[in-house]
Amino acid sequence: MTARAKCSELPGAVCVMSPGAADLVLPKELRERLASHVRLVSRGDRFQAGALADAEILISGWGCPRLTADVLAEAPRLKAVMHAAGTVKSLVSDALWERGIVVSSAADANAGPVVSQTLALITLAARRTLAMAAGYAGGWPATADRRGADGLTVGIIGASRIGRRVITELVRADAGYEVLLYDPYVTDEEARGLGAHRVPLAELCRRSQVVSVHAPQLRETTGLLGSGMLALLPDGGALINTARGAIVDTDALTRECATGRIEAYLDVTDPEPLPPGHPLLSLPNVLVTPHIAGAQGSEIRRLGEYATAEVVRWVSGEPLLGEVTREALARLA
Amino acid sequence: MTARAKCSELPGAVCVMSPGAADLVLPKELRERLASHVRLVSRGDRFQAGALADAEILISGWGCPRLTADVLAEAPRLKAVMHAAGTVKSLVSDALWERGIVVSSAADANAGPVVSQTLALITLAARRTLAMAAGYAGGWPATADRRGADGLTVGIIGASRIGRRVITELVRADAGYEVLLYDPYVTDEEARGLGAHRVPLAELCRRSQVVSVHAPQLRETTGLLGSGMLALLPDGGALINTARGAIVDTDALTRECATGRIEAYLDVTDPEPLPPGHPLLSLPNVLVTPHIAGAQGSEIRRLGEYATAEVVRWVSGEPLLGEVTREALARLA
Repeated sequence: MTARAKCSELPGAVCVMSPGAADLVLPKELRERLASHVRLVSRGDRFQAGALADAEILISGWGCPRLTADVLAEAPRLKAVMHAAGTVKSLVSDALWERGIVVSSAADANAGPVVSQTLALITLAARRTLAMAAGYAGGWPATADRRGADGLTVGIIGASRIGRRVITELVRADAGYEVLLYDPYVTDEEARGLGAHRVPLAELCRRSQVVSVHAPQLRETTGLLGSGMLALLPDGGALINTARGAIVDTDALTRECATGRIEAYLDVTDPEPLPPGHPLLSLPNVLVTPHIAGAQGSEIRRLGEYATAEVVRWVSGEPLLGEVTREALARLA
Repeated sequence: MTARAKCSELPGAVCVMSPGAADLVLPKELRERLASHVRLVSRGDRFQAGALADAEILISGWGCPRLTADVLAEAPRLKAVMHAAGTVKSLVSDALWERGIVVSSAADANAGPVVSQTLALITLAARRTLAMAAGYAGGWPATADRRGADGLTVGIIGASRIGRRVITELVRADAGYEVLLYDPYVTDEEARGLGAHRVPLAELCRRSQVVSVHAPQLRETTGLLGSGMLALLPDGGALINTARGAIVDTDALTRECATGRIEAYLDVTDPEPLPPGHPLLSLPNVLVTPHIAGAQGSEIRRLGEYATAEVVRWVSGEPLLGEVTREALARLA
């Protein structure tokens, strides 16, 4: 068998993502790795006519348009989509699911950086870091005003992929955190398996010094943390949101933070970005960052590595690790 | 043997620390644990006449005065000092060392909270969190302006107890940090054993996106990071100091941060506290906290647990884990 003959047997794969992303997601080494398993063609971030004619696999990324019925009509051989990014919500369509095309997301590879940043923020919130910094000029805090992390209660909203990893790390931490979980889809037993106690949302808010949001944005979770729930947080409490802005009622949170009663660490907001001059941007007990908890910079390569590994698994007939089904998607961020 | 006879055989131990500290350091359960091994008496935070007459062991803490020759003259049976706090520098004296009294410090128990807070700050600095928050109002950062943690170089100054633990955690982190170490007392081989590369200070500053200080305050380390070294930090770099303020030249750091070129996370400063209105307190790319990285609040109990375990080891004839020698003290924070 000549190299050429062997090559022609490789399944066709097309990569569609914005050119800036492609360089970070699939640098040369990853393209070379892919080239031993598929005939790889890059097509920029649009579906030109005929682009998908031979493709069995689509490697999609940021900038890839939705796979509508029209697009799929020109992709007769397409069997699998490996999305080298997080959510596939803007990518999939009814037509895609109806064709039985397999979809995999690299959301798992995106989770690591979110988990690290969230845990760092929880550590800071445990010792009321923003409040301590804000109060610095007002005088040295007394021993009694200083809070340690040991035995603190942390409330996790949502046992998502990221929420679960945050819980696991918190349970492992030597601070001996008590972890509460609110998630209507998780049983008491599953929560115990994670090391957390499942409680109603109001109880979680009342008992947790630090609350961290890890729920998907759904109709049921939009505005989940409104003025009533936020008012239940104890004095000196903290809200952390690295998930989706709309889960928290921005006006209610602004009012609660403006009194200095609680602090907030917000990597996502509603709207996002916040308009210039929004009060949350200047409160000393609030840290607002521009959605930096996620694979970025050097971490973007993780997405390409994940998608590449999925392609290799697919070609080798092994089960995918990141498969997303139509049913599961309804509950995902 | 009656309980009374047994009790009279227990060695005498005296606890000297400020009353507020004593309640946090040695809560009831720990006093009860101690009571099975020593005859424990609490004496407040002063050495009243005769206070140490029968004591073989002193459990000292915050507020305990220095063990001068005069104090020791009234403590003829004193053989061991278990310090339920960090540094023993303000406690010991030449007379104490000359008497051959054994000294143990709970600095190890204080290290955990410092390590956690430092690692959290390194995680934030890795993605330029303060700069990103400061720039929020100026516009959404482009993909190219976002930095991930993967493969970043972190420079550790000082392989102290805390420095070593920070290195160990960084090496373990899934970001794959490259760790550089500056410490004149560590060999290349010891550094490699920790997972770090030993380099001269200037090279560490030049190559590290994040620099974290973990050196003791000595004559040789005072002002170690002056304008020359700070100028070597790369644009977008960060300085973290949870060790001792005087290791960094405050004016030089202020100038470097005022341009926005680097960011700083300072839990200690020189002077400490900074005077009201000091420019470091209002720069958006600088976070100044009032020495909160250390056992505080619920974590203070760790110090008492450590000292209690040392007392038990001493009484049982086992080696102490926290012994501090006169020679070692010269190199400790």
